[in-house]
Amino acid sequence: MVVGDFATKRQLVIIGGGPGGYHAAIRAAQLGIEVTLIEKEKLGGVCLHKGCIPSKSLTQSAANFASLSHFKNMGISVSGASFEYDTFTNYYSSVVDGLQKGVEALIKANKIEHLKGTASFMSSERIGIDSGHHFEMYEFEHALIATGSSPLLPKQATLSKRVMTPHTLWELNEVPKSLLIYGEDYFALEAAMAFRQLGSEVNIVVPAEGFGLDASIEKELQRVLKKNKIRVFKNHTWDSAEETDDTITVTLNKDGSEKVSVEVSHVLYAAGYLPNVDGLGLDVISLERDESGFIIVNEHSQSSVSNIYAAGDCTIGMKLASKAIKQGKTAAEHMAGMQSAFNLSLVPYVIHTNPPIASVGLTEEQALAEGYEVKTGQFSMSGNGFASILGQKEGLSKMVMNSKSDVVLGIHMMGAGAVEMIQAGTFALEMVAREEDLSYPVYAHPALNEAWLEAIESTSGKAIHVPPARKKEKSSV
Amino acid sequence: MVVGDFATKRQLVIIGGGPGGYHAAIRAAQLGIEVTLIEKEKLGGVCLHKGCIPSKSLTQSAANFASLSHFKNMGISVSGASFEYDTFTNYYSSVVDGLQKGVEALIKANKIEHLKGTASFMSSERIGIDSGHHFEMYEFEHALIATGSSPLLPKQATLSKRVMTPHTLWELNEVPKSLLIYGEDYFALEAAMAFRQLGSEVNIVVPAEGFGLDASIEKELQRVLKKNKIRVFKNHTWDSAEETDDTITVTLNKDGSEKVSVEVSHVLYAAGYLPNVDGLGLDVISLERDESGFIIVNEHSQSSVSNIYAAGDCTIGMKLASKAIKQGKTAAEHMAGMQSAFNLSLVPYVIHTNPPIASVGLTEEQALAEGYEVKTGQFSMSGNGFASILGQKEGLSKMVMNSKSDVVLGIHMMGAGAVEMIQAGTFALEMVAREEDLSYPVYAHPALNEAWLEAIESTSGKAIHVPPARKKEKSSV
Repeated sequence: MVVGDFATKRQLVIIGGGPGGYHAAIRAAQLGIEVTLIEKEKLGGVCLHKGCIPSKSLTQSAANFASLSHFKNMGISVSGASFEYDTFTNYYSSVVDGLQKGVEALIKANKIEHLKGTASFMSSERIGIDSGHHFEMYEFEHALIATGSSPLLPKQATLSKRVMTPHTLWELNEVPKSLLIYGEDYFALEAAMAFRQLGSEVNIVVPAEGFGLDASIEKELQRVLKKNKIRVFKNHTWDSAEETDDTITVTLNKDGSEKVSVEVSHVLYAAGYLPNVDGLGLDVISLERDESGFIIVNEHSQSSVSNIYAAGDCTIGMKLASKAIKQGKTAAEHMAGMQSAFNLSLVPYVIHTNPPIASVGLTEEQALAEGYEVKTGQFSMSGNGFASILGQKEGLSKMVMNSKSDVVLGIHMMGAGAVEMIQAGTFALEMVAREEDLSYPVYAHPALNEAWLEAIESTSGKAIHVPPARKKEKSSV
Repeated sequence: MVVGDFATKRQLVIIGGGPGGYHAAIRAAQLGIEVTLIEKEKLGGVCLHKGCIPSKSLTQSAANFASLSHFKNMGISVSGASFEYDTFTNYYSSVVDGLQKGVEALIKANKIEHLKGTASFMSSERIGIDSGHHFEMYEFEHALIATGSSPLLPKQATLSKRVMTPHTLWELNEVPKSLLIYGEDYFALEAAMAFRQLGSEVNIVVPAEGFGLDASIEKELQRVLKKNKIRVFKNHTWDSAEETDDTITVTLNKDGSEKVSVEVSHVLYAAGYLPNVDGLGLDVISLERDESGFIIVNEHSQSSVSNIYAAGDCTIGMKLASKAIKQGKTAAEHMAGMQSAFNLSLVPYVIHTNPPIASVGLTEEQALAEGYEVKTGQFSMSGNGFASILGQKEGLSKMVMNSKSDVVLGIHMMGAGAVEMIQAGTFALEMVAREEDLSYPVYAHPALNEAWLEAIESTSGKAIHVPPARKKEKSSV
């Protein structure tokens, strides 16, 4: 290895080519900054290779597979339907490849220097890049850390063919016979629903505090999980696991005392992450981090060292690509002298279950806890004409409003179309919409969106497709 | 027939139980008005029985059938796929029945008097109801006319098994072998795409002025029609038709001179409507109508006779259930003393082609014609990650903005998710959103909605997934 003594000068060095890193790189390039992007693996990061894209390919394929039985009712007759896991992995791999090539082309088109290697800070102005056979030192004006995070493993369990995390799930080459999912976030729910639809026996250990959803949605979710014959373990915690050649037996503690054992072919552990900061030399630069090691950033994505920014999963707060993207762009703009800032109070939260869940803003419980006087309205998707056409009548839409000002505080939905519709909620909340802003516009008919109008009108007992008696009950707080 | 001399008093008489009529009836009942609803056929009107619900069942079933080939790529293997038209008609009939029962139950729950019969005005305060064996006179405070419209037929054509309108299409009992569609609205396009996907040979005569879509969307639509091997006749008009037992030969005039003949098994004529007002006695009450007979209403749904309102397809303007619903509710609220008014400048326009089209606000051409300084941004769905996962990469999203104020003037989309996403556009335009209101929020990832963010950022050359060279080109006006 050759260690250069002379430090090459760079305007911006970005460590990590995931969504946070590459969005920042392109935005910075657009703003005239010369960018060096360092990635030790492939561009696109976990999101593209082991996260968003494979997982949404899985949820979508599973939902499509499950839809065949309804297709039959609609006149679409098929025989001998089966799910070919190999074909599926080839499919999402080709989607991933296509998107990766797209990112590579964009990096090139934006004249961004792309280096393969691992980085470590020497000081708050110098960074070393180890490309295996070569080590080079760079002096930078700004740096952005976007190195992501890695899933935790439970005690007494080691990663194996049978014990998977969200990142290693993609090494599967068949639908698991039976699965225990131990998880606290959307990923656990998505995997539970998808593998169940593909034929796995699924057990899910649900966090005592639930999934952070509005209680009405959480209740409907529990109903849907049960209807799908997904075995739900509430108030259970991980105790231990024992693996044989064919199976793994997980022992759970119920309410901290009683023990329950579940024998399955596979375990998916999706409960907790740690930031990818080992070897980055963060101690050298005295960068502030929280007790788990996540980098503390302000609303401009700036760390405690003002010329060093951080974005995405390696920072405090939620682990979502959407956050990484926003933080990455904000960092690039801020270092270019713009007054950009992000606000994570209105990040849409999406779960690709079937039906999907999407939510933005405060839940009813959060709104009450924050001291608002709250009114709510909700509408069952079974009353929506388009949901009837689709044969997807599960779920509901719920509006949470400030009953004094009529300002919309939160929008929550489980049901067909939720993912596409939630952006309307984000716009509405960002623009401080009041009840009238959502009830006045014309809604296309027939459309899933009409469920929102009915939910809004329910807050004042004016939903058209809710009979008067039920209406009173629903409109009470 | 017994003619009663004594007129029974009623607060509100509504003629027509379609979406305009029944929404008005329920809203009026909610506001404490005693309502009599007269319908000569089934509650729900054309929308439920011969329009929205059957047609969206058709487009959805056809899209699902067409999706099977892509399912295979995703790992979902099926053999022997076929479309059973009988099953399909049973399916949508059961959806229609379910929704009709729902409307009937709501009418009852809201204590609305429901009479079966035909109505005719005797004066601006009296109306006669003929229920076949009984004729009764009612004196009303307010009336609402919501009688709908009926499709026109071309000259030299009579309704038959082979010559259909949007209302009689539902008498089909098989997928037509070949179809000529003569139409000017969304219905023509939806039927063309759906029957093509189900195996028909499809010809469509496109209006010279196009379908009223933004030129970028219209261009993409033409490409998609051609790709689907739908034969498009531009600048052709109906000349004549000759029907045999097995076929119908339609002669079209090209550019007003050359004649072209097309032999098909079926014709669908979806070009023009007339209001259902015959026998209503509108002349007796001197109600103002336009030259085609459509009732002229103001923004409160009031006709020229101030206690008589009208809603939906029998009134001037677009023929959409969404308009009927808004007008019906507005009428009920206005007659109850509220200051309600509707504005049809921001009605979302939706076409359930595959991929679907949805649009709200001004097209680029309209914005320029209205004198705005316009900037636009657009983004191809092929650059969207979620569209790649779905394998639905056709279409584009387009933003039309006022380049002086950054106010969004129109949002236009062809692509997966367009129908569900367009409500976000309606909210944004109603709330006078500016560029920043749509570019600042966090967008879920991966999601179809991100295409909008890229289209917005394209207006200022800041789209992440558009290379710099193309960016400049797109962002120019």
